[in-house]
Amino acid sequence: MCFWSQVWCEADFLFLKEKLGSVYPHSHYFKSGFIGSGLAVFSRHRIHDAFLYRYSLNGYPYMVQHGDWFGGKAVGKIVLGITGLTVHVFVTHLHAEYCRERDSYLPHRVVQAWELLQFIRHTSAGADVVIMGGDLNMHPDDLGTRLLRSYTGLKDCFTETDSFDGCEGGNTHISENPFTNSDELVPFGGGVRIDYILFKGSEQVDVSCESLSTTKGPVPGHPFSYSDHEALTAEFLFTPNKKKHQRSEREVDCFPDNLPDLVNTVNEARTEVKVGLHCAEHMRHTTARTGIMGLVLLVLELAIAAVPIFALGDDQPFPKASFYLLGALCFAILLFTSLLYIFYSMEVKSLQGAEDQMRLALGSLQERLKESPKGLSSVHSETVQLKS
Amino acid sequence: MCFWSQVWCEADFLFLKEKLGSVYPHSHYFKSGFIGSGLAVFSRHRIHDAFLYRYSLNGYPYMVQHGDWFGGKAVGKIVLGITGLTVHVFVTHLHAEYCRERDSYLPHRVVQAWELLQFIRHTSAGADVVIMGGDLNMHPDDLGTRLLRSYTGLKDCFTETDSFDGCEGGNTHISENPFTNSDELVPFGGGVRIDYILFKGSEQVDVSCESLSTTKGPVPGHPFSYSDHEALTAEFLFTPNKKKHQRSEREVDCFPDNLPDLVNTVNEARTEVKVGLHCAEHMRHTTARTGIMGLVLLVLELAIAAVPIFALGDDQPFPKASFYLLGALCFAILLFTSLLYIFYSMEVKSLQGAEDQMRLALGSLQERLKESPKGLSSVHSETVQLKS
Repeated sequence: MCFWSQVWCEADFLFLKEKLGSVYPHSHYFKSGFIGSGLAVFSRHRIHDAFLYRYSLNGYPYMVQHGDWFGGKAVGKIVLGITGLTVHVFVTHLHAEYCRERDSYLPHRVVQAWELLQFIRHTSAGADVVIMGGDLNMHPDDLGTRLLRSYTGLKDCFTETDSFDGCEGGNTHISENPFTNSDELVPFGGGVRIDYILFKGSEQVDVSCESLSTTKGPVPGHPFSYSDHEALTAEFLFTPNKKKHQRSEREVDCFPDNLPDLVNTVNEARTEVKVGLHCAEHMRHTTARTGIMGLVLLVLELAIAAVPIFALGDDQPFPKASFYLLGALCFAILLFTSLLYIFYSMEVKSLQGAEDQMRLALGSLQERLKESPKGLSSVHSETVQLKS
Repeated sequence: MCFWSQVWCEADFLFLKEKLGSVYPHSHYFKSGFIGSGLAVFSRHRIHDAFLYRYSLNGYPYMVQHGDWFGGKAVGKIVLGITGLTVHVFVTHLHAEYCRERDSYLPHRVVQAWELLQFIRHTSAGADVVIMGGDLNMHPDDLGTRLLRSYTGLKDCFTETDSFDGCEGGNTHISENPFTNSDELVPFGGGVRIDYILFKGSEQVDVSCESLSTTKGPVPGHPFSYSDHEALTAEFLFTPNKKKHQRSEREVDCFPDNLPDLVNTVNEARTEVKVGLHCAEHMRHTTARTGIMGLVLLVLELAIAAVPIFALGDDQPFPKASFYLLGALCFAILLFTSLLYIFYSMEVKSLQGAEDQMRLALGSLQERLKESPKGLSSVHSETVQLKS
């Protein structure tokens, strides 16, 4: 099976489909957004079903130079039947990180990670095997990666396999890649690991990662790479679990040892979402104030224009060009601020929605934690105070 | 438990929470869109988890008088534990129908129904009981309702119960309701059934609907109703299934008798989505042409303006006011068409994505149909030719 998370137009998908068709006869391209979603899956096994979840937050449309918003980023799911096993395969691509020190997209990426894990948790109860691949744009110890791994119980191929062949540290975004601006990778020793293959088995099947490898920069004999990130290849072994027993949701969704850590991680994510919410509300207020200013200016201009017409007659000619230019400017301000106000309101709603879900999840996790008192002491609660 | 699908602001939710708190201590309000999502659930039982799926299509932002786009319509899911059973509860509200004869929103509503059934199918594999309530804005025999019922296996309380008390035919949108424009209901005999409670059990539990009732217009003793639709109340009986056996996805997702009908219904939905796709592509082309026209006009205007400045000098004064007005008009055309082009491209992508999923589903269903040859003869295939 073959995941792609950066196929940005259907023509590229069709080209790949033709080239890969002999080895991977089955494929699915997920369509979303203006130019995306970029997600494609090629498979040796028949694809029975496909479903797409579009992330509620994905950057800002006016950040055209970044362009993530136009990609309509999402998580795609396909269902395969492999030797009688139901295998759920997820492919995704999260919002890029443009500046690690002042990452204004962090709350969006955390909400995306939350929606990704919620989608995987809610849709994979019937799966024997779950495999997730994609460009998460997060380092292995970043909040979103920890949240995803600990809440879904998905294991990381890089840390699980005994046989790894590839770039140092499993890095997939490296300075040797010709598409990479190597300066930005200097603080990280020339490379970061931001692409992952995660997996988990079930009560029915044990899954282990037999090997993992990455490409290492340019294609041998050529000056170019196939992509700006290195490709990952993993081999899995499915072993039927002899101790089969009745599956229930509780069992599928259990967190044997990491419950206290998970509570802390969800708390941390909630804090990040609250910070994002504060920023989004601030931006909405600023937009509303600017819009009101535009409206006042427009009304003022109309009043000034009305004076010579209705009160002083035509003796004092009004400078028409300036009048129209100022009117157009006010109108443009009103239009842009209205659109932005709608956008920021939707952003606020999505952040509030994610925070509500996190609060609910924390309640359930803490209740479960009370039932297993061993880990209570290691949970610390965080309180955030935001003043605007 | 209590579903609401038209709670349009958080203040209303908090008011209801306070009023209903003594009977339904647990609640969740789903936030989405600019003013929505309108979805709220109140429950006697603890809510363990909540998840929201926003529909990819939901009308047009410029149809402000209809306003559905601003509601950010979605399907919300909550997970309850009732006497040891895992109960998945879904609440939704689909796009309204404003004109049944020329329903331009039909493809959007069909895609919403498709996404709703996909969400329910994919997320309810671990459920012992599934209950769905909401305003589907579709009549009982409409394409979307048939598709939802037949693909998910959900049963309709109105047709399943032996004890019904309410408006004739189970109608929920009736002319007796003070908020209703009764003229629009004349062709339907004064009322339609567009709100539903659907349910299904599992291998673990048999579920039956013991009773269903609706309110009947205004609140007794008052001139007003609580809502523009009549409220539905259902009582369920959960009976543990003694013939418990291992659950697999195939079993959860089986369609015992209606496979040929289901194939026909998915074909019908695919046809409707193709019609919508044709319209969306046509609108995108029209928008692009208008945008190019605006651009040409702007370039032409700039060229005309340049002539007296650079070639003929200041002897022929250019009418400044007209120049600025025309420039502003061209700029406005370019701006609006650019925004619309992005919107229509996203609509096209969503329609194509839904159609791809339907094609994939049809392949799987037809394969399953081949395995049970009894129904092959009753399947008819539809081919659509669209010429622009």
